[in-house]
Amino acid sequence: MRAELINPFMRSLQKTFTTMLNCPVRRTSLTVKEDCRACHEVSGVIGLTGKAVGAVVLSLSREVALKAASTLLCTEMSEINDDVLDAVGELTNMVAGGAKAELEEFQLAVSLPNVITGKQHEVHFPSNVTPISIHFTCDWGDLSLEVGLALLPSMEGISAPREQLLGQST
Amino acid sequence: MRAELINPFMRSLQKTFTTMLNCPVRRTSLTVKEDCRACHEVSGVIGLTGKAVGAVVLSLSREVALKAASTLLCTEMSEINDDVLDAVGELTNMVAGGAKAELEEFQLAVSLPNVITGKQHEVHFPSNVTPISIHFTCDWGDLSLEVGLALLPSMEGISAPREQLLGQST
Repeated sequence: MRAELINPFMRSLQKTFTTMLNCPVRRTSLTVKEDCRACHEVSGVIGLTGKAVGAVVLSLSREVALKAASTLLCTEMSEINDDVLDAVGELTNMVAGGAKAELEEFQLAVSLPNVITGKQHEVHFPSNVTPISIHFTCDWGDLSLEVGLALLPSMEGISAPREQLLGQST
Repeated sequence: MRAELINPFMRSLQKTFTTMLNCPVRRTSLTVKEDCRACHEVSGVIGLTGKAVGAVVLSLSREVALKAASTLLCTEMSEINDDVLDAVGELTNMVAGGAKAELEEFQLAVSLPNVITGKQHEVHFPSNVTPISIHFTCDWGDLSLEVGLALLPSMEGISAPREQLLGQST
């Protein structure tokens, strides 16, 4: 996957957490994912189609999922229930939607979010796609964002917005 | 979700297992899913976009995943490794692709497959979508297919192909 495609997703995550949740996130590390394991207990997955196809996975620790849902729903949530899962799905949708708007040359469409739970769950991408994982932390705990996209052949020569790859400050 | 939309997915699964794996499947039960739990250990998830949005989840028992991968790869697989996960992703892709071809009025596009592993994993749909789950069995073991689709408002009045809902013989 071309690394510069990750920046719009990263910016969208940062903006979503800042504006919707009033909880800025800080980037802690970036990996070209090899072990293909969702990093946390609750993962929102959204498929992407268009001139690139793939998926975005927003993986939240239990604490981040509960606090984010509590903030979105204006109600204290203390267990992972359907409302919390819907909130995580909606957060994933916001992140994907924000990135989609920046990547208009790829004419992306987003599917509905599926939310995966289970302490031992892993979310794998096809082995011909190398997803990029970015790890973040915030006052509520840890989270990660993973994006895997494959360009249609007609888009191979198209540049994403010119910027230093993944070099923006957090 | 409109029940008649499930038929193309069911037919596609049956055709894929018969023609690609030489392993016919038999339908055992159908549920309008309420507990939102993936039924088996390995689940392929593909997002769908177009005039309907949603996802399809193909959930396989460990035994079915291993046997299906062994057949597709012409190599005996005895553990869930990347090759097996890719094979499950490709099976999910075939099922989604076959259904997409039948549902051309919805102009569906499919994302890349993500494959979820973990004995305790659950795959949830948004609570405003009621996915339909169909359970199957075959000589290798059990599997299930789950489809959740939401129509765009412009498609609410469009009929899917006329047929008895879910009434086809297995």
